[in-house]
Amino acid sequence: MENAGYEPSAGGARPDWIAVDWGTSALRVWAMADDGTVLDRGRSDQGMGGLDPEGFEPALLALIGGWLPAAGTIPVIACGMVGARQGWAEAGYRPVPCAPLALPLTVPPVSDSRIRVGIVPGLSQLRPSADVMRGEETQIAGVMALEPGWDGVVCLPGTHSKWAEISAGEVVSFRSFMTGELFALLSTRSVLRHGLAGSGDDDEAAFDAAVLDGAARPEALAARLFTLRAEALLTGLPAAAARARLSGLLIGAELVAARPWWLGRDVLIVGDDAMAGRYGRALSAMGVTSRTLPAERAVLAGLSRARALAARESA
Amino acid sequence: MENAGYEPSAGGARPDWIAVDWGTSALRVWAMADDGTVLDRGRSDQGMGGLDPEGFEPALLALIGGWLPAAGTIPVIACGMVGARQGWAEAGYRPVPCAPLALPLTVPPVSDSRIRVGIVPGLSQLRPSADVMRGEETQIAGVMALEPGWDGVVCLPGTHSKWAEISAGEVVSFRSFMTGELFALLSTRSVLRHGLAGSGDDDEAAFDAAVLDGAARPEALAARLFTLRAEALLTGLPAAAARARLSGLLIGAELVAARPWWLGRDVLIVGDDAMAGRYGRALSAMGVTSRTLPAERAVLAGLSRARALAARESA
Repeated sequence: MENAGYEPSAGGARPDWIAVDWGTSALRVWAMADDGTVLDRGRSDQGMGGLDPEGFEPALLALIGGWLPAAGTIPVIACGMVGARQGWAEAGYRPVPCAPLALPLTVPPVSDSRIRVGIVPGLSQLRPSADVMRGEETQIAGVMALEPGWDGVVCLPGTHSKWAEISAGEVVSFRSFMTGELFALLSTRSVLRHGLAGSGDDDEAAFDAAVLDGAARPEALAARLFTLRAEALLTGLPAAAARARLSGLLIGAELVAARPWWLGRDVLIVGDDAMAGRYGRALSAMGVTSRTLPAERAVLAGLSRARALAARESA
Repeated sequence: MENAGYEPSAGGARPDWIAVDWGTSALRVWAMADDGTVLDRGRSDQGMGGLDPEGFEPALLALIGGWLPAAGTIPVIACGMVGARQGWAEAGYRPVPCAPLALPLTVPPVSDSRIRVGIVPGLSQLRPSADVMRGEETQIAGVMALEPGWDGVVCLPGTHSKWAEISAGEVVSFRSFMTGELFALLSTRSVLRHGLAGSGDDDEAAFDAAVLDGAARPEALAARLFTLRAEALLTGLPAAAARARLSGLLIGAELVAARPWWLGRDVLIVGDDAMAGRYGRALSAMGVTSRTLPAERAVLAGLSRARALAARESA
């Protein structure tokens, strides 16, 4: 299950299988050895959001063509929005509580006989609130593979951040927040964008204060947001402080709503440096200690688990 | 001060002055008689947001050209984002507490000698929170002109809704909320747009429930929003219900934050039918009775007041 590190191959990778994380805006692929070693990797902007059903196979082959065997078929295990209704082939949702991964994988039709693609299904929930995930279930499976027997709460920051309760090998329940998408819309499409553009690292003190402010008065979010605009006009609020406050206000409100998830729990954040760092810092401002696992490590461990399940079945 | 109604002119309007409401996305003009009668009106999409400084005069003349006198100069009184730093000429901000309108108006340079334009300044506030308004001060002045001696709270729904406390002829303080812009971004640019498009009147029962829900748990907004997406995928939530819930959740959170403004106060909503109706309905769900004044009536009464002030000074 271990991702033992990246070993660039001299004469072209000859992987045992190929791992694919195919989101709305990006496609990422890894040439994998059966022992979990990453032989090579690739990435393109051919996300599911910009592709028609017939566009998926060419987009994939453009990245992995050099890894394909001269003869025979190589397994390709994919997770993410590629399995959505508007994706390559719908992989459905499995209702929680359940293990994060289970067969069958969905197999889209392909014209290149050298690949056999399997897409991991998502997870759904009807109660206490309707929710869905696609891609995060694979990261959660990766957490379980890397830390067998661990129970706790996984926080997965992102466009739609997720909090998931893990117990006895199952996802018990989960909750999504549109925090990341709100940040993206407000910082690039709203009147606030004028005051947020600019260089400079984000202002950590301003972020911490905004987390506590957003947590203390989450109902005032829409007013606090306009304050950023007014301060830009009236008092020349620096862009770095404005960005930090926007992020802090949104994450602070999320943390209050997610309190039952993290209060007194063992919290593991799965995410990339910047985003996971921000959530860890915000939790810390609320007095909570958390650990972080890189998203790539989690998704590769999860896809490895799916690959093992699929191989066992076909053996 | 009364807007006595619309009288279409047979042989072309010959107004005493011209009223202009020039916002970010629209330009609206009225041919006015000195007694407040509206002789004619016009509208274009040449909002301040799409114009360079040299584009304002042609955009205005395109609408009012037929109203201009053969000889002499006609006063043109304008309010709104036309007076912003990125507008035609910056009209500055006057700090509250203060009367909503005061001279001097800002006079942009024009090449057509038949018009003399005056732009109303905005209002600003530094404490208790930084805030600005531009355009709403004129509507508030209109409220005061139409209801002399009235004290209370004016709620002005819009892209950036405002709550303003009026006492003894002054704006004492005010607070802006980005509620309208959040609704626009979420309904047209976010993942929710897929589930919100569709025909059918908004679902009033769903709106009322969402107002109370948004008010009861405002911190859960980002999670409630994602629930709309999940219910669209899992249970086929109708678009009319989803739109109503999005609007209700956002307005409900605003009302909780604005509670000090409306609790036990005389609330007057200034706005157009749909938007003002939604706020009135939401206040009603919170047990508050409010009255509504059409936005056009308020802005014309306010611009008439500015016209009278300016005429008195130049007399």
